[in-house]
Amino acid sequence: MYVSDSIQINEKGHLTIGNADTVELAKAYGTPLIAYDKDKIRENCKKFVSSLNEFYGNGRVLYAGKAFSCKEICRLVMEEGLGLDIVSGGELYTALSVGFPMEKAVFHGNNKTDKEITEALHCKVGRFVIDNIEELHTLNKFAKKYNVKQGVLLRIKPGIDAHTHDFVKTGQIDSKFGFALETGEALEAVRECLSFENIELCGIHCHIGSQIFDFGPFKLAVEVMLSFMGKIRDTFGITLKELNLGGGFGIKYSESDSPEDFSEYMKAISETLRKKAAQIDYPLPFVYIEPGRAIVGAECVTLYTVGSVKTIPDIRTYVSIDGGMGDNPRYILYQSKYEVVCANKASLPRTRIVTIAGRCCESGDLIQEHTRLQEVEAGDIVAVLSTGAYNYSMASNYNRYPRPAVLAISGGTAKVIIKRETYENIIENDI
Amino acid sequence: MYVSDSIQINEKGHLTIGNADTVELAKAYGTPLIAYDKDKIRENCKKFVSSLNEFYGNGRVLYAGKAFSCKEICRLVMEEGLGLDIVSGGELYTALSVGFPMEKAVFHGNNKTDKEITEALHCKVGRFVIDNIEELHTLNKFAKKYNVKQGVLLRIKPGIDAHTHDFVKTGQIDSKFGFALETGEALEAVRECLSFENIELCGIHCHIGSQIFDFGPFKLAVEVMLSFMGKIRDTFGITLKELNLGGGFGIKYSESDSPEDFSEYMKAISETLRKKAAQIDYPLPFVYIEPGRAIVGAECVTLYTVGSVKTIPDIRTYVSIDGGMGDNPRYILYQSKYEVVCANKASLPRTRIVTIAGRCCESGDLIQEHTRLQEVEAGDIVAVLSTGAYNYSMASNYNRYPRPAVLAISGGTAKVIIKRETYENIIENDI
Repeated sequence: MYVSDSIQINEKGHLTIGNADTVELAKAYGTPLIAYDKDKIRENCKKFVSSLNEFYGNGRVLYAGKAFSCKEICRLVMEEGLGLDIVSGGELYTALSVGFPMEKAVFHGNNKTDKEITEALHCKVGRFVIDNIEELHTLNKFAKKYNVKQGVLLRIKPGIDAHTHDFVKTGQIDSKFGFALETGEALEAVRECLSFENIELCGIHCHIGSQIFDFGPFKLAVEVMLSFMGKIRDTFGITLKELNLGGGFGIKYSESDSPEDFSEYMKAISETLRKKAAQIDYPLPFVYIEPGRAIVGAECVTLYTVGSVKTIPDIRTYVSIDGGMGDNPRYILYQSKYEVVCANKASLPRTRIVTIAGRCCESGDLIQEHTRLQEVEAGDIVAVLSTGAYNYSMASNYNRYPRPAVLAISGGTAKVIIKRETYENIIENDI
Repeated sequence: MYVSDSIQINEKGHLTIGNADTVELAKAYGTPLIAYDKDKIRENCKKFVSSLNEFYGNGRVLYAGKAFSCKEICRLVMEEGLGLDIVSGGELYTALSVGFPMEKAVFHGNNKTDKEITEALHCKVGRFVIDNIEELHTLNKFAKKYNVKQGVLLRIKPGIDAHTHDFVKTGQIDSKFGFALETGEALEAVRECLSFENIELCGIHCHIGSQIFDFGPFKLAVEVMLSFMGKIRDTFGITLKELNLGGGFGIKYSESDSPEDFSEYMKAISETLRKKAAQIDYPLPFVYIEPGRAIVGAECVTLYTVGSVKTIPDIRTYVSIDGGMGDNPRYILYQSKYEVVCANKASLPRTRIVTIAGRCCESGDLIQEHTRLQEVEAGDIVAVLSTGAYNYSMASNYNRYPRPAVLAISGGTAKVIIKRETYENIIENDI
């Protein structure tokens, strides 16, 4: 019925996630509260891995931690045999803290600091994704210092416009990320890379955008990237063995979103990979894919308590909740769509059109405008759906609000995986 | 020369803030680094207080903590005799932790929770600014429980459009904040307020927007608010003694901004106050003003280290820095203007047009586009000016990056006022 199978309505007419009653969760843990269906996340991990195995066979699924990183999610993806796409020292530290096998981690980022490069070398991260020439020099310097040969992929801009939101287009030439193909920059980067003693060029990487539903751009990316691997072979006489196709698989935020099943994606790009590889007589590369949002995004709700309902005649009705841009900045940033449901009246029809207002001292602090909702009043619990990706991970302490607690539901039972911040946390670094 | 007198260039050609060499600061404390000129902030506090005293006489300056709250800034405004505009339990807790006299604090917010209302009552906060009817009921309930009579101001929407950015307009009728005048809602709120035993209606509040340069809307707000006070007197026979005019005074972010001196503002609105009060034969009210940005915004720089410079022929040059939307989300949120200077080459002309890119794994993570900068390379220190308001306060751990250290410079000497977050901080609430 809703955006994910995780979300149902129970016999009391309450919204559930992973079979846990969200009204009971709100009562037990307070609001704002973030609740993930851990079983469904696990299922998603399995689905990605099995699709890759079934349709292609030679590769690895990397969970993109930037969507939502914490110790528990690292443990879960580790249990499921996925690797990790890591973008910072902080994400690296989180993974290390639970004993993540770092040889299965890939270290991204357009501006890795010397400190982060050193940390990643020390924990023997599997691959660096090299963003720029300066990074190549710095990495070689440190790899030499520590007497290692570091495996890398080069981040390539394949020049593909994936028809998505401006902010999340990353494959086109005007991007801060990677080396451009069409200017010859990418080929020059390969040449330079091959000249460094402490760097082993293992392959190339691209990421064409986020929240993409159409397979077309992905298939095109495969063709462009394999062609470039062929060109590298023709130019330098080396056959790179690894191809990282990034992430970007769209999820269902609202009823109008209709993502295909991931296995269909994997089937489609596997066909393209085989066809293109055969065409240029290239051995099938080891393929990485990097889902983040697609694993955690839809299997989550954020629960809030309504504080007031303010109707401005002929204009709109504001429903004020006890959270907002602090825990979910995606609406103020991107005007992202979300489904909103009154958790304790979930079986009633959503007959009102309302604006969900956060509690930050800022007019733009809204979570959704002109959205359908049940008739609500102060004290009701409002659930915002599909808040699993880029919500907690982007959360701030704006207005010095503590960040919410995060729960994982498994077998219908909730467990706190990130404790609610305290006021003491807020001032702990103040002197 | 730059946006604030705090910012100068020394004999080495380095940028200084409060006479401290920013290149030395970056070396000593690392980057990203936020540095405030504490002496200039103190001077700003004095200027607001003395202008209010000189031109009007009967009132209080409240520092709006949402712009930047921490223990040290609370101590400073306390030393200067200002009150505090507080918007959350976290800001309240911060002020309490340094012994702030809470009778000089005013508690704002469109959705105060029961917990926050209780906390504010317990510490005897001076005034609540009531946003909505539900809050009035809740406050009365708790005030009764604790046997106090709480002084309040009602937040009024005066219906003024201050010609500023959509997100920061707060006085017009379509706002989540306050009671509308023209629908009669505000007068009804007064009536209701007067019926509550444990609430004392002391006055009214408005806030017409942010980063406003024109005195016109402020003067109009004074007229509208005083007229409403007159109407309250005529309707209910009571003469409210307090008028809170909010904040919103613009600061200089770029050379094209030309804010007037605050004393000119105070002079202008004092004249309007006297004239309007005389006209309706109303005693001059006790006036609150709530500057936040205007006290701290321009007296601050954020320092970053350049990691790479990427020129895309005929398109643009990306200068990647070791911070970004995590410590300054205002560009991605509002496309806010900032001046950018190479701190170690500050005396050279800014001959390049560049885009300053953050290090978050997000294409939109930019700090400024198409801005003038000196010729820079990896290792250079870049300073972004006027980052004192709504930068650290809105900072996140997106990508699990630790938040920067914050310095206060006084007499040319730096002191850490907020410690740099550690990786350990990042995972401390993870289970």
